[in-house]
Amino acid sequence: KNVHLLRERQKTTFDIEKLTQFIYSDYFEVDARRKLSRQAYDHPIHDTHLPLEYLDSNDYYETLVRKSIIATDEAEKLGISDSKHLMWYLGAFTEERVAFSLHLRMFVPTIVMMATDEQYQQYLELAKKFKIIGTYCQTELGHGSDLRRLETIAVFEHSSDSFIIDTPTITATKFWPGYLGRTANYVILMAQLYTNGKNCGLQPFLVQIRDFNTHEPLPGIEVGEISGRLAHEAGDNGYLRLTNVRIPRNQMLMRLANVDRNGNFTRLGDSRLVYATMLTMRVSLCAYNAILLARATTIAIRYSAVRYQGQNDKGNEMQILDYPLQQDKLFPCLATSYAFICSFSRLNQIYENVMASKPDEILQQLPDIHSLSAGLKAMTSSISERMSQICRLSCGGHGYLISSGLVGIRLILDAGCTYEGDNSVLLQQTAKYLLKMYQQCENGEELISPTVAYLKETATIFSPISNISNLEYYCKIFELRARRLIKDMYTKLLEIAASTSQSPYETFLENSIELVHIARCHMETFIIRSFYDKIKVTSDSSVQNILNQLFELFAVYTLLQNQTYDFVKFTILSADTIELLKKRYQQLCTKIRPNAVGLVDAFDFHDKELNSVLGQYDGDVYEALLERARLNPSNKTKIHPAWNNNLLSLMKERSKL
Amino acid sequence: KNVHLLRERQKTTFDIEKLTQFIYSDYFEVDARRKLSRQAYDHPIHDTHLPLEYLDSNDYYETLVRKSIIATDEAEKLGISDSKHLMWYLGAFTEERVAFSLHLRMFVPTIVMMATDEQYQQYLELAKKFKIIGTYCQTELGHGSDLRRLETIAVFEHSSDSFIIDTPTITATKFWPGYLGRTANYVILMAQLYTNGKNCGLQPFLVQIRDFNTHEPLPGIEVGEISGRLAHEAGDNGYLRLTNVRIPRNQMLMRLANVDRNGNFTRLGDSRLVYATMLTMRVSLCAYNAILLARATTIAIRYSAVRYQGQNDKGNEMQILDYPLQQDKLFPCLATSYAFICSFSRLNQIYENVMASKPDEILQQLPDIHSLSAGLKAMTSSISERMSQICRLSCGGHGYLISSGLVGIRLILDAGCTYEGDNSVLLQQTAKYLLKMYQQCENGEELISPTVAYLKETATIFSPISNISNLEYYCKIFELRARRLIKDMYTKLLEIAASTSQSPYETFLENSIELVHIARCHMETFIIRSFYDKIKVTSDSSVQNILNQLFELFAVYTLLQNQTYDFVKFTILSADTIELLKKRYQQLCTKIRPNAVGLVDAFDFHDKELNSVLGQYDGDVYEALLERARLNPSNKTKIHPAWNNNLLSLMKERSKL
Ligand SMILES: Cc1cc2nc3c(=O)[nH]c(=O)nc-3n(C[C@H](O)[C@H](O)[C@H](O)COP(=O)(O)OP(=O)(O)OC[C@H]3O[C@@H](n4cnc5c(N)ncnc54)[C@H](O)[C@@H]3O)c2cc1C
Ligand SMILES: Cc1cc2nc3c(=O)[nH]c(=O)nc-3n(C[C@H](O)[C@H](O)[C@H](O)COP(=O)(O)OP(=O)(O)OC[C@H]3O[C@@H](n4cnc5c(N)ncnc54)[C@H](O)[C@@H]3O)c2cc1C
Repeated sequence: KNVHLLRERQKTTFDIEKLTQFIYSDYFEVDARRKLSRQAYDHPIHDTHLPLEYLDSNDYYETLVRKSIIATDEAEKLGISDSKHLMWYLGAFTEERVAFSLHLRMFVPTIVMMATDEQYQQYLELAKKFKIIGTYCQTELGHGSDLRRLETIAVFEHSSDSFIIDTPTITATKFWPGYLGRTANYVILMAQLYTNGKNCGLQPFLVQIRDFNTHEPLPGIEVGEISGRLAHEAGDNGYLRLTNVRIPRNQMLMRLANVDRNGNFTRLGDSRLVYATMLTMRVSLCAYNAILLARATTIAIRYSAVRYQGQNDKGNEMQILDYPLQQDKLFPCLATSYAFICSFSRLNQIYENVMASKPDEILQQLPDIHSLSAGLKAMTSSISERMSQICRLSCGGHGYLISSGLVGIRLILDAGCTYEGDNSVLLQQTAKYLLKMYQQCENGEELISPTVAYLKETATIFSPISNISNLEYYCKIFELRARRLIKDMYTKLLEIAASTSQSPYETFLENSIELVHIARCHMETFIIRSFYDKIKVTSDSSVQNILNQLFELFAVYTLLQNQTYDFVKFTILSADTIELLKKRYQQLCTKIRPNAVGLVDAFDFHDKELNSVLGQYDGDVYEALLERARLNPSNKTKIHPAWNNNLLSLMKERSKL
Repeated sequence: KNVHLLRERQKTTFDIEKLTQFIYSDYFEVDARRKLSRQAYDHPIHDTHLPLEYLDSNDYYETLVRKSIIATDEAEKLGISDSKHLMWYLGAFTEERVAFSLHLRMFVPTIVMMATDEQYQQYLELAKKFKIIGTYCQTELGHGSDLRRLETIAVFEHSSDSFIIDTPTITATKFWPGYLGRTANYVILMAQLYTNGKNCGLQPFLVQIRDFNTHEPLPGIEVGEISGRLAHEAGDNGYLRLTNVRIPRNQMLMRLANVDRNGNFTRLGDSRLVYATMLTMRVSLCAYNAILLARATTIAIRYSAVRYQGQNDKGNEMQILDYPLQQDKLFPCLATSYAFICSFSRLNQIYENVMASKPDEILQQLPDIHSLSAGLKAMTSSISERMSQICRLSCGGHGYLISSGLVGIRLILDAGCTYEGDNSVLLQQTAKYLLKMYQQCENGEELISPTVAYLKETATIFSPISNISNLEYYCKIFELRARRLIKDMYTKLLEIAASTSQSPYETFLENSIELVHIARCHMETFIIRSFYDKIKVTSDSSVQNILNQLFELFAVYTLLQNQTYDFVKFTILSADTIELLKKRYQQLCTKIRPNAVGLVDAFDFHDKELNSVLGQYDGDVYEALLERARLNPSNKTKIHPAWNNNLLSLMKERSKL
């Protein structure tokens, strides 16, 4: 209906559907996803309640759990069995607040990976039927990043052939697990195993915490919700204290390590695999972060095409998307969304290849995929957090409304910088891996992973200006910079080792700020290369054309952001080239401008998925804003009850003073 | 009690109280502020309710309005009359959610500035007694930044000697004003005045919207709360539609413009003064932004001194404040808090000088103070927003809790980037002013404001390395950079004007990204110079010493962030110097480390003001975290009522499937 968006769509120079299909090939399965989400949105239950922002916390919780239960029913009726499809369907059904998310993403996969066949038989059926609602309990009040120091203990008791599980201190209290507070009846509990007086490290235990019939916490269990978290109320994050809770021996997940009847401990597999579910989670978080940024960008760009503000010298009001300052805010978000989707696709290919390998090969490739997924999770969450905030700012005051959808997106991304590993902690792991790879490189060893292959290259000089239109050039200069940084750091560390008595730990610590910077620069090579490799193979020329522009914008923007100095320092780019790139940046914004709305349409978000009064497809934002305000339950009465109750008389007394 | 903080405090090398007194001299009146807030915190009403995060929206609203009313009573009893003191007292009493904030900060000041003597007599008494609860209605659904296009109209009707006020379109709906939705009974309404068929621009009108006795909206008024905003629920932002509401002629505020009995319009003062209350608000927002950042920093640094995570090579657990990466997150926040407090003080001095001048002089100085306050509001809000987010991340998962206090601080700062003027819009105004000043400079005219005096300097070269320990050197290089940027831009704009037919508007637009960058660089000269001028006069040498370190850290950090390239481009700094500064940065972090807790203690925040389980003075964070979680009302029952009501039976049916 809205004429402005119509006009924008007419300007689009490429076939939107073609771009959608192209960008989402591989993992995302456009057609399946469309069908599943529409099936979910069509359910009549969604018309039975106000927008979630208007529900009080009890209704909110109840609505979402009820929807989650019904959604699993419906999914079964529809025969949705593939786990990715199931998550899409449940997500669409519950505005992505499905009460079974940790059950499906952490609890069940941990059983699949770490249970013995017997345990698998015993629990998987119960879990699949949702008789068990599980969650994953790892973090404690005192420890999150450093898992070795978790304090919850599971002590083997020979007489009863069981483990006694206990939370010996306040800091040992399990804290944060999602859906723990009021929902889960089972948990996978990470605890320090003690048997025959010896600590055998962290192991996963299956612990029932609530009665199936009454939902009452079992004896010895104190479980509750933690204090408030914005936008995560539905996540029902909980705390858990266990006082000498006894569980049978066979409730330790024993695929990777075994405790026998006599309490003898045997390691059966690589202990790093204990964290394998976190790896899977990180990979899928990269997809989620990319999609969240794409959503925020869609909302902000559509709104900016509808919003007029300020008058030009001809006396006409300006569409805010025409302000270079607005383009400077939003087009990098747009290009980065595409870049992130492509880099997730590549990460996922690598991940699937690893997982399809033989067990030893998996172990061999684990450091690479770990470093990569950790790094990409950190980059996509922190950059998307920042950019979604820019999207919110770009919508002015209205962007600050919950109903804009932007505030909620930012809050999820914010949490995503912390959960599944604090970003600074993760990037240090990526840095460590890089140093090791560089060492292998120096030692003339082969590098198995193509993602670090550039470390071996030797070219150091480019003839920059003439190459600006050669897109691969951008990949090369990012790689060159990363290589130079790693090389210099590696040399520096060697020198310190040779000339001082500092321990490697201390040296790493002392250089950790720079090392994290290097890890980021490395991840940029991965992102830009994945983006480039993807768009290289486009078959449609008008799609190709616009993707090339986006790619170049992403490269130039990333280069000009913060890091220009590196390029200058290594004389990879001259000051003249930088000035040229600044001009190029603005030219690219101008080129992309007519396709901006088409490019966000191509992300193919259903209005229900965006759930935004500013971002809806038809662009009727003002009607939506006013309508949503009128729906506010506090407007049901003309006078807020508090005034009738006693504020009015308090005021009257007051003014008599 | 907590031994870690005790140990930190023992390490402090300076007298904390002396620093507090020094940094808060001028505006903040340490002793008065302490006394007032303690009086406010001591009131027994605060013990009658759960933490605000646990109240449902009705209780939340009622509690805060009730507290606001009682607080005004108490303030009167205590004889608090100074308006700054009153705001401090009321703020402390209501966790800064006083229902009369816009009344006191916008409504009353607008009357003071724009009412005729007669109007002043008539309304001020009512307002002071809080019989009137007013707010300031300017923004509409369709327009916020561009006030000229506001659509609400006030048409003079001769026959009845009154104005007919109307909201002719959906986009004309007043949207956002604080305390409008359910609280205010009066508004200052900005509307387009029409008289004798002519539009006479935006004028302020006094409009009663609710009945004093019943609190019912008056005829022709539709008023309500807008949709949800996180952390601003108490702000009660509202919308307002008026359908042909008639008000007597004398309810237009007529000090600056008059409409007589015959509808003749006469301008009596400079029309820019219509926005004078926004100027005052912006000045005070700079103080608020600085304090909010200081609070976030206090919370994060105290927590980082108590939190241990990760193990060093000696097997000991690390205090996270000892990680260089953590220092890199937090010490810039610390230094910036100090820098912002000093720059606010300087802004406020200038502002008070202007306001104390004669009317013509005020007008003459208006562009300068406008540009300065707009620029500083933009800088302090956007940088503090970003830094408070870094503080939240630095506390890991627990930083994401509402009870950490960090999430709420960031949300207020986020809103502060938009209200009282969108930051990009404001910085463009600062840029325009700078170009004008540079032109005056080129024309050999005198520059009246000392804040732009550096534009006239001519020195261009420094001998950098030797000067690093000379603190004024930092002010100089920031000024040199800003001057070079302005000069180049000015020259470029002249060239465009000479060689093309582009309009000045188009040229400005085309260069707006760079112009905003220049405005920021200019504001940095103001901030760094204010900081330097302040610490120069410290009398205590140990205080001096630590302030020097903070100053230098601020300078080096700001320089290395993002903008290194400018300094290199203009060859103000060589690549070698930059490398030196990077080392210097880490050295400064190490130097500041032992004083970190002392430096946040010096901000002198009461625990009730921080309102944070992570930041309290005693450092007992884990007890506080668990206790706060247990208080969550959803933990009152062991089974959430929703399960008993029907989730349990739904689940049972489900698993039969
Ligand atoms: C919304 C949300 C949901 C969650 N859901 C779950 C869940 O379902 N199950 C679960 O078990 N947990 C969950 N968590 C907890 C989460 O996994 C942890 O918060 C996360 O692992 C970070 O650990 P931490 O909070 O202990 O941070 P900390 O490790 O305490 O980090 C605090 C600060 O110290 C720094 N730091 C720590 N170690 C180092 C180091 N070695 N070097 C340099 N700096 C360091 C960090 O960078 C950070 O700045 C959730 C958290 C959130 C916010
Ligand atoms: C929490 C909160 C409280 C508020 N309280 C009040 C109140 O009490 N009373 C009241 O009257 N109002 C209030 N407001 C409204 C506030 O004053 C406006 O939101 C603000 O002035 C920005 O205007 P806008 O929302 O129309 O943004 P817009 O002007 O629509 O801005 C949207 C985007 O367009 C860009 N843009 C706009 N103009 C230009 C330009 N010339 N050049 C380049 N880019 C441009 C902006 O940078 C931004 O990115 C409040 C808002 C909030 C969020």
